Amino acid sequence: MTDRRLAGPVRIVGTGLLGTSIALALRERGVDVALADISPSSLALAIDYGAGRAALPGDEPELIVVCVPPDVTARIVAQELADFPNALVTDVASVKVAPLVELEELGADVSRYIGSHPMAGRERSGAIAARADLFIGRPWVIAGHDGISYSRAAQVEQLALDLGALPIEMTAADHDRNVALVSHAPQVVASLLAARLGDATDAATSLAGQGLRDTTRIAASDPELWVQILRANAPEISTILHAYRDDLDRAIATLDAPDVAGSRRALAELIAAGNTGVARLPGKHGQAGRFSRIVVLVDDTPGELARLLSEIGELGVNMEDLRLEHSPGAQIGLAEISVLPAVENTLVRELESRGWKISEALA
Amino acid sequence: MTDRRLAGPVRIVGTGLLGTSIALALRERGVDVALADISPSSLALAIDYGAGRAALPGDEPELIVVCVPPDVTARIVAQELADFPNALVTDVASVKVAPLVELEELGADVSRYIGSHPMAGRERSGAIAARADLFIGRPWVIAGHDGISYSRAAQVEQLALDLGALPIEMTAADHDRNVALVSHAPQVVASLLAARLGDATDAATSLAGQGLRDTTRIAASDPELWVQILRANAPEISTILHAYRDDLDRAIATLDAPDVAGSRRALAELIAAGNTGVARLPGKHGQAGRFSRIVVLVDDTPGELARLLSEIGELGVNMEDLRLEHSPGAQIGLAEISVLPAVENTLVRELESRGWKISEALA
Repeated sequence: MTDRRLAGPVRIVGTGLLGTSIALALRERGVDVALADISPSSLALAIDYGAGRAALPGDEPELIVVCVPPDVTARIVAQELADFPNALVTDVASVKVAPLVELEELGADVSRYIGSHPMAGRERSGAIAARADLFIGRPWVIAGHDGISYSRAAQVEQLALDLGALPIEMTAADHDRNVALVSHAPQVVASLLAARLGDATDAATSLAGQGLRDTTRIAASDPELWVQILRANAPEISTILHAYRDDLDRAIATLDAPDVAGSRRALAELIAAGNTGVARLPGKHGQAGRFSRIVVLVDDTPGELARLLSEIGELGVNMEDLRLEHSPGAQIGLAEISVLPAVENTLVRELESRGWKISEALA
Repeated sequence: MTDRRLAGPVRIVGTGLLGTSIALALRERGVDVALADISPSSLALAIDYGAGRAALPGDEPELIVVCVPPDVTARIVAQELADFPNALVTDVASVKVAPLVELEELGADVSRYIGSHPMAGRERSGAIAARADLFIGRPWVIAGHDGISYSRAAQVEQLALDLGALPIEMTAADHDRNVALVSHAPQVVASLLAARLGDATDAATSLAGQGLRDTTRIAASDPELWVQILRANAPEISTILHAYRDDLDRAIATLDAPDVAGSRRALAELIAAGNTGVARLPGKHGQAGRFSRIVVLVDDTPGELARLLSEIGELGVNMEDLRLEHSPGAQIGLAEISVLPAVENTLVRELESRGWKISEALA
């Protein structure tokens, strides 16, 4: 295979979910992958899965990817830097400041280390859950620092691109602040909410709907991993949770005195602020203004949705996103199609002229 | 049609999402449905949709279903009780204690009123979003009170059963306590979390993944409706949020002193308590147990998704649901397709033989 950027060999240390997934993706591109893991059985499993070969004495990797839990990342990175004095070393831990600080304290040669963080994962862990396509289309943060050269950083970018990910450069501090907001604080919020269900009656949980399931889904995450993440990024997470608690205090005060003047407005502003925030997220309910959404009624017969999409393709219109809403037993589905605003009017007119029923996108 | 329990006629007051959906479902069973709405254009729209006929002077409904916002529910129910002295009146508001108290204060004949609450909804509102299958398999709370006879309560149970819902009897107080836990407090928690994103940088939101999207999805809800719900159930919601805040305070204190002895254990217990809570939810991935999901990689070129769906149609396989995951800029999308478990293996085999790449279902 020639459509790859990295020449290899690449050494992967830690054959859990992320390490094995990276290895599988590199193997698909024909890169020589040398695997190492503290657990012989984990290593054997990853090799069985086709993730590469066992590392050998005399290996001279161009790139080493350390895929171990956050608590031990800096120690393993330092060891790899010492063992392979010509290799660039990166890691995939969910925090980026703490490992860099620890490496500097350990006196490691950080001119050959650059941290990274692929924003991808699964609720399952281990090599058994690995997949070569785990990173496709996902952001991959590359956290440069002053001691690293531009060409070194480019090598990690090539890794991300070879895996189909979208490289995003930011400092370690910016990374940690950003993931505290979009990942770590939400984990705490969801876990605390789910914890309230611990002593719920069966009558209460029988009323739970999709909203609660979605809101608490990530509360099923692994405690051992999250203790390490929360501790390593504690100050940034705490800053967000302090602000969150201030808002919560105001909400509780309003609910405790609902008849005070202004309480309606305060509650409306609380919900409206949530509307504004969620609209900032890219993807299906986000990027307000970036895409127009139209809803087409589609009969629940095989081939109808395909016919709709064929006709959209014939019109030369590229869909940015598609969501089908379809309840079991319903005779009609709603296909919500996101397109660039410039083509919305033409698309609606053309589809209507072909007999499709269009609804407004309301939500 | 004879497979119905209610004889009708049924009068529906308020032709929004819930009222029109109830009406559509009853019409499917051949029940005579008389519609009323304060807005002539809303009423005309619901009639156009086949939800029933306009109410007429002289109508003698056996059952009246009031489907108006919580704030005006008691007033409209009282009016209906007065206007139709032989009819049973129910409502579908998300709170059950406040309307009953207000009706008693208004001196209404509550011996003919029994509150109910179908646990179903959509992010969209209005008759245009209505669907006859909205209630199928969903819980429908029937909140009896001492002034109502057993046979009266049975009539609302028949309505729920005719609509395919699962009737659950509980007192108004139990209902309000339960929905505070599984719906109202989660709404506040999600809205407050989403509000933190209001001034997030683009760099931060670009890192958002499915976890944050799920956790904040319900934050897109309608402020006007939620102000009414939160005010009407304020004491129960506040009780839960006070306990939540106590837990949050402990989490923040731990994060502010991560090196104190016991902090690891405190954080592990926080996440583990969330594990326990989320495990209490029935069918924790929604209807995932009912359908099998497969993920197909689809190139981001016009016509590719249509080709996939055409081939699925040719195989005679009916999709129960479809979700396209597609990050901006990515060259490949992931189409998650839900099918009946009986056809999953055949579909995977046939698609792979036609060259499609299949992944495991997304978490």
